[in-house]
Amino acid sequence: MRTFQQILPLRTYLRGVREEGKTVGFVPTMGALHEGHLALFRRARTECDVVVVSIFVNPTQFGPGEDFHTYPRDLNRDLQLASNEEVDALFHPSVEEMYPAGFQTWVEVPELAATLEGSLRPGHFRGVATVVTKLLNIVQPDVAFFGQKDYQQFLVIDRMVRDLNLTCRIAVVPTVREADGLAMSSRNVYLSPEERRAATVLFRALRRAEELVQSGVARADEVARQLEALIDAEPLATREYVALVHPETLQPVHSLATGVTLVALAVRIGRTRLIDNAFIAPPGATA
Amino acid sequence: MRTFQQILPLRTYLRGVREEGKTVGFVPTMGALHEGHLALFRRARTECDVVVVSIFVNPTQFGPGEDFHTYPRDLNRDLQLASNEEVDALFHPSVEEMYPAGFQTWVEVPELAATLEGSLRPGHFRGVATVVTKLLNIVQPDVAFFGQKDYQQFLVIDRMVRDLNLTCRIAVVPTVREADGLAMSSRNVYLSPEERRAATVLFRALRRAEELVQSGVARADEVARQLEALIDAEPLATREYVALVHPETLQPVHSLATGVTLVALAVRIGRTRLIDNAFIAPPGATA
Repeated sequence: MRTFQQILPLRTYLRGVREEGKTVGFVPTMGALHEGHLALFRRARTECDVVVVSIFVNPTQFGPGEDFHTYPRDLNRDLQLASNEEVDALFHPSVEEMYPAGFQTWVEVPELAATLEGSLRPGHFRGVATVVTKLLNIVQPDVAFFGQKDYQQFLVIDRMVRDLNLTCRIAVVPTVREADGLAMSSRNVYLSPEERRAATVLFRALRRAEELVQSGVARADEVARQLEALIDAEPLATREYVALVHPETLQPVHSLATGVTLVALAVRIGRTRLIDNAFIAPPGATA
Repeated sequence: MRTFQQILPLRTYLRGVREEGKTVGFVPTMGALHEGHLALFRRARTECDVVVVSIFVNPTQFGPGEDFHTYPRDLNRDLQLASNEEVDALFHPSVEEMYPAGFQTWVEVPELAATLEGSLRPGHFRGVATVVTKLLNIVQPDVAFFGQKDYQQFLVIDRMVRDLNLTCRIAVVPTVREADGLAMSSRNVYLSPEERRAATVLFRALRRAEELVQSGVARADEVARQLEALIDAEPLATREYVALVHPETLQPVHSLATGVTLVALAVRIGRTRLIDNAFIAPPGATA
């Protein structure tokens, strides 16, 4: 595995890759790699000749009071995991390499970023859209891979790529879960053993949503009310939102009867903020 | 000359160009071509194998009450002029091709856009940065060429290209002037014969600034005062700004003694808004 901390040598390497006629798959990450990331690497491997991974804890997508400084970082472990997965090139730039003095350009996707995570984390998606634009311009992949757990992020980036006429395709890969359903997340390491057990409340709520819609409940507000009650019954959980929205516009839906709905959750377990989501659909529709 | 109204066939053509190992020079324009544009085409021809020109009156860089609807358009004449200059490919998309339904991504360069034109035309540089990002991603040129008359636009775009890690180089080409010094502009056609004579006040002010600094005047406020008086003495002129600024940061300078200063002007002649600029430097320095 080749590793790069600077943009220019990475560009030189990638020029060589493209001159050989090879396709490039790209997985941008913030490190603290887990099975969810590895699933992205493996998917990239099946679709592309060369797999490029970035590890960059992007300061501009963290708000004041968020966990930029405490976000888990373990580069040596990450390098080993990526190398074991036969990642071809790993890019781990410094903050100064990505945001040199004088930097002042921002990419915004205001409508998709106005809701859910964006409404609770002002500036978050501006930071995401900006750093991903930069990374896509540096790597110029054929396909870039994102996890479904951060579904709104995928939508924002997919919109941005199309709006700015970037040439790469954006692929979304299903969420990888622990045996008890907890979605893999680098932030799960923050959880105490007791919190770790409580954290399954997100998956339990998503499963409840699926059961309700399968049993014929068609009113979104009725489903939301039951999910909220389920989450509120967990003493260590503080609910931030339970949203039933259109999976492309992220606008609230009222009836679940007509098609696929995205259930999106944000819950604090102690001081750790977790998100998860699932598609639900009434009997006969395809989720 | 090949002409394209849609992005996909243009991309296919350009892929062929690059596969032949040819370099691409790109000149984005809003049409109503004049000698200033032709100078950009010729400069592109000297530096690159293939010259691509776009003609697109970009609605997102016009504010409410500005001249988007009346902006001069003459595609047949423009096609003839570009063809005479041996432009290789001309891209003239529709508004729907550039901004399809659902479009919502914006590129902002807030600090450089906060002053001069940006302070009087809110949203202007957001529209410029966004459409130029799109065009650069569509054409993927080796070099893109901009006129010095819109010097702040050049700075914004150059910053944006570096900040977003686009690979092209941005070149600025000196302003082309009429015999009496009026900077070439598509908006000059708005001027009545009497206004056309009055419009030389911008060039006269720039020449006065040069004379003052050459004669040893070192105080920026003294130069500004004299330029303002010169402009205000022209009955058909309404002054918007006279700015003496650092040519990289666009921040106001107080002394002209230490290096090169940008003099930037915006003046209304009747209802027509004109801008112009020049670099000035004290004796011994190089402008």
